[in-house]
Amino acid sequence: MNKLRIVPLGGLGEIGKNMMILEYGDDIVVIDAGLMFPNEEMLGVDFVIPDISYLLQKQKKVRGIVITHGHEDHIGALPYVLSQLPVPVYSTRFTRELIALKLKNRGVKAEPELRVIPSDGKITLGNFGIRFFSVCHSIPDAVGLVIETPLGVIVHSGDFKFDHTPVMGEVTDVGRLASAGNNGVLLLFSDSTYAELPGHGASEAVVSETLDNIVAGASGRVIITTFASLVSRIQQVIDVAAKHERRVAIIGRSMKELVKAAMATNYLHVPPDVMGRFEDLKGLPHNRVILLTTGSQGEPTSALVRIANRDHRSQVHIVPGDTVVMSATPIPGNEMLVNRTIDALFRQGARVIYDKMAQVHVHGHGSQEDLKLLLRLVKPKFFVPVHGEYRHLSLHAMLAQSVGVPKENIFVLEDGDILELQKGSGKVEGKAPLGGDIYVNGSTTGKMDVAVLQERKLLSQDGVVVVSAVIDSESGRLQGKPCVKMKGFIASHENQALIERSQEVLSAVLNDKGGSYLEADLIDARVKEVLSRFFYQEVHRHPVIIPIIGRV
Amino acid sequence: MNKLRIVPLGGLGEIGKNMMILEYGDDIVVIDAGLMFPNEEMLGVDFVIPDISYLLQKQKKVRGIVITHGHEDHIGALPYVLSQLPVPVYSTRFTRELIALKLKNRGVKAEPELRVIPSDGKITLGNFGIRFFSVCHSIPDAVGLVIETPLGVIVHSGDFKFDHTPVMGEVTDVGRLASAGNNGVLLLFSDSTYAELPGHGASEAVVSETLDNIVAGASGRVIITTFASLVSRIQQVIDVAAKHERRVAIIGRSMKELVKAAMATNYLHVPPDVMGRFEDLKGLPHNRVILLTTGSQGEPTSALVRIANRDHRSQVHIVPGDTVVMSATPIPGNEMLVNRTIDALFRQGARVIYDKMAQVHVHGHGSQEDLKLLLRLVKPKFFVPVHGEYRHLSLHAMLAQSVGVPKENIFVLEDGDILELQKGSGKVEGKAPLGGDIYVNGSTTGKMDVAVLQERKLLSQDGVVVVSAVIDSESGRLQGKPCVKMKGFIASHENQALIERSQEVLSAVLNDKGGSYLEADLIDARVKEVLSRFFYQEVHRHPVIIPIIGRV
Repeated sequence: MNKLRIVPLGGLGEIGKNMMILEYGDDIVVIDAGLMFPNEEMLGVDFVIPDISYLLQKQKKVRGIVITHGHEDHIGALPYVLSQLPVPVYSTRFTRELIALKLKNRGVKAEPELRVIPSDGKITLGNFGIRFFSVCHSIPDAVGLVIETPLGVIVHSGDFKFDHTPVMGEVTDVGRLASAGNNGVLLLFSDSTYAELPGHGASEAVVSETLDNIVAGASGRVIITTFASLVSRIQQVIDVAAKHERRVAIIGRSMKELVKAAMATNYLHVPPDVMGRFEDLKGLPHNRVILLTTGSQGEPTSALVRIANRDHRSQVHIVPGDTVVMSATPIPGNEMLVNRTIDALFRQGARVIYDKMAQVHVHGHGSQEDLKLLLRLVKPKFFVPVHGEYRHLSLHAMLAQSVGVPKENIFVLEDGDILELQKGSGKVEGKAPLGGDIYVNGSTTGKMDVAVLQERKLLSQDGVVVVSAVIDSESGRLQGKPCVKMKGFIASHENQALIERSQEVLSAVLNDKGGSYLEADLIDARVKEVLSRFFYQEVHRHPVIIPIIGRV
Repeated sequence: MNKLRIVPLGGLGEIGKNMMILEYGDDIVVIDAGLMFPNEEMLGVDFVIPDISYLLQKQKKVRGIVITHGHEDHIGALPYVLSQLPVPVYSTRFTRELIALKLKNRGVKAEPELRVIPSDGKITLGNFGIRFFSVCHSIPDAVGLVIETPLGVIVHSGDFKFDHTPVMGEVTDVGRLASAGNNGVLLLFSDSTYAELPGHGASEAVVSETLDNIVAGASGRVIITTFASLVSRIQQVIDVAAKHERRVAIIGRSMKELVKAAMATNYLHVPPDVMGRFEDLKGLPHNRVILLTTGSQGEPTSALVRIANRDHRSQVHIVPGDTVVMSATPIPGNEMLVNRTIDALFRQGARVIYDKMAQVHVHGHGSQEDLKLLLRLVKPKFFVPVHGEYRHLSLHAMLAQSVGVPKENIFVLEDGDILELQKGSGKVEGKAPLGGDIYVNGSTTGKMDVAVLQERKLLSQDGVVVVSAVIDSESGRLQGKPCVKMKGFIASHENQALIERSQEVLSAVLNDKGGSYLEADLIDARVKEVLSRFFYQEVHRHPVIIPIIGRV
């Protein structure tokens, strides 16, 4: 076949768990393998990964997985994917460090092939010639891809923004993008995460200025929280500390781990005597101290949340004069936890500075004008917006139209759609055999049964009531007193009368000839129906009812 | 006593369920009686209302409840409060309509005394002389209060913003505020909802302009969703429709109800031939139609969500050319539902315009500069920020300091705090006997047992497993085969082997002499322990285990 197949297996229509498949002839290349954190309806689910059955069917064709950067939504599914599909993984150096750390933390024993490519390096995977180029994003060593295919060049933006004054020298390589555009690009994949946001994204330089002002004006300690992987922000804090002759201690395991990795690989530059352990800084006056902590998302077991709650396990307690800087924005879904943390810090007497009050954070994705600039530089024939929920993809498609990409050349795809490109045209031809998302719950990886999730939802609303009784097979009469147990329904110690009446209701049903001579299934249904009605009448609630009717 | 007691029973520290108590000598006045919608941790709870035990202890002193406006967080607790505390309720006319509607919808049979006061009227309740003044807010007929007390004047802002070009003639009465300020104000209560937001709030006039542009440019139908009680927005839509010669139909029960009430009381002005039923508009060309719908918060059974999901029960289906305007912002906690609705509408092919893209909504609360203006006008001696989570109150306190209120005269209170004011000084003297929030769950109104909520949380994570078995009392041996049932744990049809093995594990425990001769409580604990360990080893999950061990 001389068709190029584009198959997104994750990240299009739902944000996170990014995975894009390119297929030509006998070759398949996978771009990214991320996970998604569950939304509030996926009760008890730890996280969600893409369904790779399409790849498993064509296992022999898969030449490798190319990773654009080390965030969870781009690498988090690797432990699961590699166990089924042991292929080489290509990434830059810092990304490789994070992948190795993740595989180790997940207890993966096999030794996958993790190959390091320079951020302007090139690899050839069958029909695909893939060249990395630097992009500026909220983690070091992020790249986009220029991919030569038999049909033409594909550009994949990765996650990116334009920041002409970044903290760590990583600018998005506009030169390479323009040169690709000038030579002709068949297809552009571009990051839609912030396609809703008008204007240009602000530069990290703005944050440096804000942090500088805050630290200069603080009379006591400054406690700064951010994402553990946002190494450039950590660098900013270290630089500000050095300037104002403060020392920095890190509180929180994951940030210590990341900082160690970043220092070992030279992604973080620390002047002598700036970093120290918290214990070493205890003797210093408070206006000589900065603490960097995890907990920017209000994670219940994080360092900052322990501080906010005056947890006795915390090394740090808020004292008058402390300033806390939330140098991050809440990821959608975490707002309540973050707000609660800010509230608790104010209650402790801290001065808290967060995104609504000052520009203490800028995000890592391009806004609308940035996205238009990329489209103008790359001038693609075809365009596929990636990394976004459906509205982000739709808005990004509208942006592309506004800068001249013809409507019929723009494909708003969703996970599983198969787009087939030929030289002059493209068409969605069917759907990859996706069975839906893969939920990871405990050690069980697999399709979470929809019924199980629905049952959890019901249980979470009004709890469960278990009713058990024994019937004499010969006489059909109830033996002894039925037993009623409940969880999450009502406070049982305050409702003894209700429980006793429910036992009476149950006895009446079972002793009724029509009840006791029924088949087991029918008895169960009868008990559920009668007790549901009883509880609803009494307390207007609908617990899940589990009858256990035994026979002796 | 010649002390004035200020006791917030709701709305300070948590947003919603507003209720403020003023007490002097033998008189108590209650301001507002609202409800709060549950957060994601209050599983199965319908809503939360203030704990009024403080009032019930002093029932004879309570002279009445004054309501500032008709939103749920100010009137929603009335059905419950009035049933325990049958006192007169004072409000403006439109607010009274909404209270009456609420009492009727909740099936309240008693006929409480609902007295209508003009928006510049005055009432005397014992020691308190209360004068209403108009404020501009996102519902008609909202007021603030100037309250004469033996110790001096209190100003309560209600929920307010400054909008000098509102849609419906309701401006915040700056004249009255200034005159109160000039004559000396002892204490100001002011709305903190948007104390995080810098600058001035935008005028409703901006929204009129945006809506006008959208309707002028739309080639097909325009479907606009907003809050049912945002009558001024509905007026704007009607005005825009009239201007562009479109007709308007309303889809959704609650909005129809509100519009009927607003038209009956003259709060909505509809030119002839603009409004019609949806059926009547079917023959019109699409560019002559505007539909106004409920569903701005993504409520699953609302008109807009039915449209978005192509529900067969919906009268309306999206066709090419339709424009949908989300003229509202998501209330915190509703973001996911709203985003999902927008996604679904894009999928149907609608052009969707929402707050991130254009100014299709302005909110009803003052931003920081507005709050400062109020403080400058009123010049209070003491200041108590109200209506906000703790961070809002803290920031509002900082704003008050910045305009000259001395720090020691600002009280950041939380629900239940008792502030005692004398002429020259104020002090928090203890806490009202609050037992915590009152949760309404089904027909049960009362303190939701914390244990019940925790059980629901556990059930929602990994479900429940019920194990039952019968032991012969004489021999201590297990009779027959144990029974295992589960909900929300694993898909039982795919895990028959696991279930069978759990039965074996259970049999082994019970047939073990040490197990079967134990007291019932100890057997239960043993069974839970062994099965918990078994299931965790097998599938890394922690279901709630309910053992039912019978004896014959």
